[in-house]
Amino acid sequence: MFADTEYQSRTRRAQAMMADRGIDGLLLTTEPEVRYFTGYLTRFWESPARPWFLIVPATGDPVAVIPTIGAELMGRSWITDIRTWRSPDYDDDGVGLLAATIKELGIKTLATPMGLETHLRMPLDDYARLEATLGSKIVSDDGMIPALRMVKSDVEVAAIQTACDVANRAFARVPEIAKAGVPLSTVFRKFQMLCLDEGADFVPYLSGGAGQGGYDDVISPASDTPLADGDILMLDTGLIVDGYFCDFDRNFAVGVPSEAVANGHAKLIAAVDAAMAITKPGATAADLFHAMDAITTDGAGGSDTGRLGHGLGMQLTEWPSLIPADHTVLTEGMVLTLEPGIEVGGGKMLVHEENIVVTADGARFLSTPYGRDMVQL
Amino acid sequence: MFADTEYQSRTRRAQAMMADRGIDGLLLTTEPEVRYFTGYLTRFWESPARPWFLIVPATGDPVAVIPTIGAELMGRSWITDIRTWRSPDYDDDGVGLLAATIKELGIKTLATPMGLETHLRMPLDDYARLEATLGSKIVSDDGMIPALRMVKSDVEVAAIQTACDVANRAFARVPEIAKAGVPLSTVFRKFQMLCLDEGADFVPYLSGGAGQGGYDDVISPASDTPLADGDILMLDTGLIVDGYFCDFDRNFAVGVPSEAVANGHAKLIAAVDAAMAITKPGATAADLFHAMDAITTDGAGGSDTGRLGHGLGMQLTEWPSLIPADHTVLTEGMVLTLEPGIEVGGGKMLVHEENIVVTADGARFLSTPYGRDMVQL
Repeated sequence: MFADTEYQSRTRRAQAMMADRGIDGLLLTTEPEVRYFTGYLTRFWESPARPWFLIVPATGDPVAVIPTIGAELMGRSWITDIRTWRSPDYDDDGVGLLAATIKELGIKTLATPMGLETHLRMPLDDYARLEATLGSKIVSDDGMIPALRMVKSDVEVAAIQTACDVANRAFARVPEIAKAGVPLSTVFRKFQMLCLDEGADFVPYLSGGAGQGGYDDVISPASDTPLADGDILMLDTGLIVDGYFCDFDRNFAVGVPSEAVANGHAKLIAAVDAAMAITKPGATAADLFHAMDAITTDGAGGSDTGRLGHGLGMQLTEWPSLIPADHTVLTEGMVLTLEPGIEVGGGKMLVHEENIVVTADGARFLSTPYGRDMVQL
Repeated sequence: MFADTEYQSRTRRAQAMMADRGIDGLLLTTEPEVRYFTGYLTRFWESPARPWFLIVPATGDPVAVIPTIGAELMGRSWITDIRTWRSPDYDDDGVGLLAATIKELGIKTLATPMGLETHLRMPLDDYARLEATLGSKIVSDDGMIPALRMVKSDVEVAAIQTACDVANRAFARVPEIAKAGVPLSTVFRKFQMLCLDEGADFVPYLSGGAGQGGYDDVISPASDTPLADGDILMLDTGLIVDGYFCDFDRNFAVGVPSEAVANGHAKLIAAVDAAMAITKPGATAADLFHAMDAITTDGAGGSDTGRLGHGLGMQLTEWPSLIPADHTVLTEGMVLTLEPGIEVGGGKMLVHEENIVVTADGARFLSTPYGRDMVQL
C-alpha cells in the first residue's frame, strides 16, 4: 500500500518505545495492528477461522507467523521472514511455530496490547498454551500501540482524506435517493451504492436514523418505515478506501424543519466550529469535549451526552475519546471526529459529525464542513 | 429479529449443556454470541471502543451488561435485565458492574468460549481485573457455543436462504458489469452495488481474483488491471440480510475458456455433487472433504488444498471445517459451504463454492447450484 519506508519508520518508532519500556518483542494479532507494520491488506480477516501473528522484535524487521493461505499476499509486502502453517490445524494452530519463533528471536519480555479499545484475536486456550510453552507471562504493551497509531503520517492523512472525499460526494447525492415515501431501509441500501459508485472499496459501517423532528437512537438497523414530511434523516458512514476509514454524518430535513430542530442543528455546527477554533497541538481531547459541550448546553456544560468524538484511521473509531476524562494532548497528525449531539425536544436527538486533522498550528477539515442549514429533501 | 421463543429455546439448550458441564454461568463478549441469545443486531460493533457483555446464568434469563448507548436497542429485545454504564469509562469500563452482576447471580464457575475460531472481545487488562475481582479463574466453555451455533433452527436456515437468494440474483447480473476492458476493482465495486440493489443489507465480504486461465490467490484486494480475453473472473461474496450471511462464489470466463480450464471447472462442480451425494446426518465433515478431494485429484486423494468448506451463519465462516482432521458428525440443520479448489496449470487455480443445509435424510442447496460450464462474459 505505502512505500516500504513508511513501515520501516513505524517499526523503528515502535522499537524505540519498546526500548523505553524494557520490552523485547511485541505480539500483534489483530487486523489493524498487523497491517500497521506490514501493509497486509485483505478482507479475509472477516473469517474468524484462522489466527494471524506478527512479532516485532527489539531490533531487526518484523516476523510474520501466518496461515499458509496468506503467504502469497504477505510475500508482496516488505516482510521477508514469513513462517507459515496450514491452518486450521486441530493439533496445533500455529502456537508451536509462534513460540519457537519468539524463542529463536531471543525475546524474553513479550508484550501485547491490553488496554482500552484493544483485544486479543486468538483463542484464549491457545494464548494460555503460548504462555505455558514460553514459560512466562505475556505483559501489557503499556499503551504503546495506541500512542503510535494515534499520530498519523502524511500518507495516512492523505488516505483518510481520500475516504472523506468519497463520502462527501456520496452525501452530495443523497437528494437523488431520499425523499418522502422512500423506506429508510431503501435509503440505507442506496446510500451504500452511492458510496461504492463514488469510489469506496467497502462500506463496513452505515448507521443513522429518521423520525419526526429527530431520531431516537443511532445504532439500530434501518426499518422499512417510509420517510415522511417533517422527518429528519441522518446517515453516518464509515467507508473504506485503501484500508482507511472516514467517519462522518449528515442530517437532512424532509420538508421544512421546525424552528427548534433548525436551531438544534445550527448549534451542532457551531459546536464543531468552537472545537475547531481551539484545536491545535497542546490542546487536549477533554478541551474539545468542553468546547462543544458548552455550545450544545448554552454555556451550562456538564451534559450527559457521552463522547463527542474520537480518533479515526484504519478503524472506524480509535483513541483518543473526546470525553472529560481523556487528557490526551493533541499533536500534529492526529485525525479526529468531532461529533456533538443535542436533544431537540420530544425525546428526539440530532447528532452531527465532521473529520479533522490536527496541523502544526491548528486543524484542518478532512470532511467538507456542512452548513448550518440542513439540506432539504 | 426472530420471535422471543427462538431466543428462549437457545437459552434453555445452553443451560442444559451448562448443567452437563458443571458451568454456572456463561460470559459472552462477541457480536454473534451476544446476538445468538438476544437478537441484538447493530453495525455498531464495528467500533472497537466499547465492550459488551452478556451473562447466561444456569437458570433464568440472560442479563445484559452493556454501554448506555445500547440500552434503547437492547430494550427492544426479549432481555429485561439490562444493566448499563457510560462507556468509555477510564476508571472502570464496565468491569465492576459485570463482576457485581456475576456475584449477584451466584455464579461460581463462569465459562467463556476459549476454543478454535473464538476470541475474547474485551481488553486483556480488564479480563485480568475481572478475574481478580471475582477471585477465580474463568474457565473454558468446553466447545459449548460451537456445538450450539453449528446447528441452525428453521428460522436461521430461512434467513441464510434469503441471503443466498440475494447473491443468486446478483451473480445472475454479473454480465451487466463485467467484460473485457473493465478493471477488476470496478467489477468489485459494481458487484457490491448489485448485491445491495438485490436486497443485501451490507456486503461485509467480497474477494475473488482474475487472471489468464485462473488466478493466483483469492484474498488480495482487487487490482485496477482490466479484464482481458482468456481471463477467468471469480467473485466470492459474503453478504448479509437481517444479520445472516451467505458465502459462495462463481467463476466467469472472459471469452471462451481453454479446455484445461473448462475441465477444471467441471471437476469442481462434480466435486460438489459428490459431496452432496453423501451429505446426510451421520456423515462427517471429513467425509465431505474426502468426497471432494477424490474428484479434484482424479481419485488419488491427499491433496494439499487446505479446507474445502466450512460452517456458515451469523459469521462468514463458522465451525466445522471440511478438513481430514474434523470428525464433526453432521446433523439436520447444519449449514455448510462446499468449496473445492483445483490447480489448472501454470500455477493458476480455480475455486468453487456452494451453500447447503443438512436435512433429515440428505442435504439441500441454499445457493442455486452453478452449472458445469462457466457463464461467459
